[in-house]
Amino acid sequence: MSSLLFLSRTGLSAGRLLIRNGGGRYTVVSPELYSLCHKSSSKFSVRCLTGATGEHTRGSSYGRRALFAAGAAVIAGVVASFSQFQKAEMKSATPQSRSNEVENDVLEKCRTFMSAPVTDVGTLQKNKEDIKSKMELLIMETQAEVCRALAEVDGSAFKVDRWHRKEGGGGISCVLQDGNVFEKAGVNVSVVSGYLSEEAAQQMRSRGKPLKGKDGKLPFCAMGVSSVIHPKNPHIPTIHFNYRYFEIEEEDGTKLWWFGGGTDLTPTYLDKADAAHFHKTLKDACDQHNPKLYPDFKKWCDKYFFIKHRGERRGIGGIFFDDLESPSKAEVFEFVKSCAKAVVPCYIPIVKKHVNDSFTSEEKHWQQLRRGRYVEFNLIYDRGTKFGLATPGSRIESILMSLPLTARWEYMHEPHKGTKEAEILDILRNPKDWV
Amino acid sequence: MSSLLFLSRTGLSAGRLLIRNGGGRYTVVSPELYSLCHKSSSKFSVRCLTGATGEHTRGSSYGRRALFAAGAAVIAGVVASFSQFQKAEMKSATPQSRSNEVENDVLEKCRTFMSAPVTDVGTLQKNKEDIKSKMELLIMETQAEVCRALAEVDGSAFKVDRWHRKEGGGGISCVLQDGNVFEKAGVNVSVVSGYLSEEAAQQMRSRGKPLKGKDGKLPFCAMGVSSVIHPKNPHIPTIHFNYRYFEIEEEDGTKLWWFGGGTDLTPTYLDKADAAHFHKTLKDACDQHNPKLYPDFKKWCDKYFFIKHRGERRGIGGIFFDDLESPSKAEVFEFVKSCAKAVVPCYIPIVKKHVNDSFTSEEKHWQQLRRGRYVEFNLIYDRGTKFGLATPGSRIESILMSLPLTARWEYMHEPHKGTKEAEILDILRNPKDWV
Repeated sequence: MSSLLFLSRTGLSAGRLLIRNGGGRYTVVSPELYSLCHKSSSKFSVRCLTGATGEHTRGSSYGRRALFAAGAAVIAGVVASFSQFQKAEMKSATPQSRSNEVENDVLEKCRTFMSAPVTDVGTLQKNKEDIKSKMELLIMETQAEVCRALAEVDGSAFKVDRWHRKEGGGGISCVLQDGNVFEKAGVNVSVVSGYLSEEAAQQMRSRGKPLKGKDGKLPFCAMGVSSVIHPKNPHIPTIHFNYRYFEIEEEDGTKLWWFGGGTDLTPTYLDKADAAHFHKTLKDACDQHNPKLYPDFKKWCDKYFFIKHRGERRGIGGIFFDDLESPSKAEVFEFVKSCAKAVVPCYIPIVKKHVNDSFTSEEKHWQQLRRGRYVEFNLIYDRGTKFGLATPGSRIESILMSLPLTARWEYMHEPHKGTKEAEILDILRNPKDWV
Repeated sequence: MSSLLFLSRTGLSAGRLLIRNGGGRYTVVSPELYSLCHKSSSKFSVRCLTGATGEHTRGSSYGRRALFAAGAAVIAGVVASFSQFQKAEMKSATPQSRSNEVENDVLEKCRTFMSAPVTDVGTLQKNKEDIKSKMELLIMETQAEVCRALAEVDGSAFKVDRWHRKEGGGGISCVLQDGNVFEKAGVNVSVVSGYLSEEAAQQMRSRGKPLKGKDGKLPFCAMGVSSVIHPKNPHIPTIHFNYRYFEIEEEDGTKLWWFGGGTDLTPTYLDKADAAHFHKTLKDACDQHNPKLYPDFKKWCDKYFFIKHRGERRGIGGIFFDDLESPSKAEVFEFVKSCAKAVVPCYIPIVKKHVNDSFTSEEKHWQQLRRGRYVEFNLIYDRGTKFGLATPGSRIESILMSLPLTARWEYMHEPHKGTKEAEILDILRNPKDWV
């Protein structure tokens, strides 16, 4: 389900980034420039020339990151495209009323994001109590938290692509490719809306409940954060997570809503302590809401990430759920929030523990073969990928950034008994409880 | 459609190979031993110890290849498993009658194969005029011809795995992996029979004609040769071919039959002369039967090997056809035979032309990205792969040996205008006529 939301693409040139300059203001630049700035930097420290004079300054947003608009052409673009986002900030320059304080809350959050949200900040402020606004802020916040944590470990910056969907909405794709620690790390946000065919809507739900639309079409809204992180070192596992929210309106005006999501780990080699830490962190997040959730969603995860033709799971699991619509919208949102907040603590300590582990070419080789299996699962079984690829106008690059940088397939490869390779394979064939 | 026929696996230990020893007799050995013999050899020259004494001799079958049974355990297995195949040969040791001459024809052919056919030689001899026997001999012959030609160029031998299908039939998988010239070369034969569900049968046909079975089950027989050859050098293209025959019996006893097949080329870089040679050779094979065939099947090929989500074809095409059932069984068989016979002449000259071409790391890099696209097509769209993976008991290793040894996915990779990479991409997006 990693890519369920990456619908439609209208070209990057249509997207612009709002970035904060030295004076605390937001500026619009092209994603290409934003990426360029990031490429020449390490961690969060970005230095780009401003204007033609070569002057540069430093901002304070994104941790130690400083972002600057550069070049006359860009400045021209900025002037032409000054948006709602800046207007919102200008309003907040007079913080008098309670309403303005509320606006400040939202705006302050947005300042920590990898890019401006898909929905304009004014609308988010106005509908602050709406679950859609809350979810959009949560997925943007999760994207920023995860990217910050990964970039800090890696020492490289993420390439940020903002894309627009002609039919409604858009997304922000953050990718760190061929870094120091990570082979490929992608963290996507998308917020899309429009009309779905009944058939497409059916694919979005794991249960077979029929949906009735007007003339076969259903107004929908879907948003989510989705990520796959493939590290270079075979002793650091791959992680995937995805948290999403859907709304569909039926013919008679009934509004259906549900949440879905999950976080799961795919190690090349088994480290029992890592597995226990990972599952325990997820269990703790679930247990805050209901002690039944973790055991159910752990089982669902093992069932979902099953590579049927191999008789193996993709990894050592985690949690997975879909169509979650009870006890209430607010309670499910709080549960999803806890899960999203658990991503960094369940994964980053494992990364840091193994980041300096040495490894052999044989271990790298086994990692590459397991990467092949990851590709098999994602291209053959993953519902989100299948749905995305089958949807005309999908943003393919965001859907398929879940694929590893490199993978390998060998004919009739089977590890010898008693090896570390056979050990993990046994777990993938016979999943166990870790908490 | 590369792997349509690789149904079911009962474990390699169940399979045995009939190989010719120094005295011209056939002997049964385990595939593991056969593979071991091949590994230690180059080209067709294989030396294995016979018995415990270390004595070895040389045979004359398979070109310069000599194959020997080895070890007391194997000898015991041989004695226990002496089969129909040897009995058939013993009969032919008294070549008196016309019937014996006929038997000699079939047997002589079988001696050039990579392994004994799936159907026992006695049955093939008895039903020599039946299209099923003719097709099985043709696919075995094609496998042997292609493997011989590839092994000669590579200087390495194929690993031969013979597998048995519990429900009926079996196959022979020949794989050359990580050779001198070829990254991965697989040539599969399978001959299977049993019962298909109406749903599965439907997937086998490209047209939507409904099939009615007794209690929803249809007796079927399917056989074919299927191959994907991935060379190491990015200047040598990948080739795929597959020729297959089906029979299905409907509820009322009606027997349906059809042929399918095709040969197509996937170069990393465009070589116009190669493209013209490849298509011209296929066109000549088609034109012997009907001048309309090549243009129709060339178009069908471009349509079939389309990676929809990328808007690209997998390669520069060739020919593709399915459900071919006219003008007559005999005539379609002759057409398929011409196509199968064209595989070596359409491809091997291209391999030989480029085998010593030097290449840069950038060219290898582009090849790896294109390999990624090959994986996308095979796992997402290929009907044969999908059908195979969805069929319980499929021999997965034979189905997925079409995947390259290594592949690569980069986020947002797009070649610069005017480069060789952009040139081939343009052809993949806008296929052209080569003859």
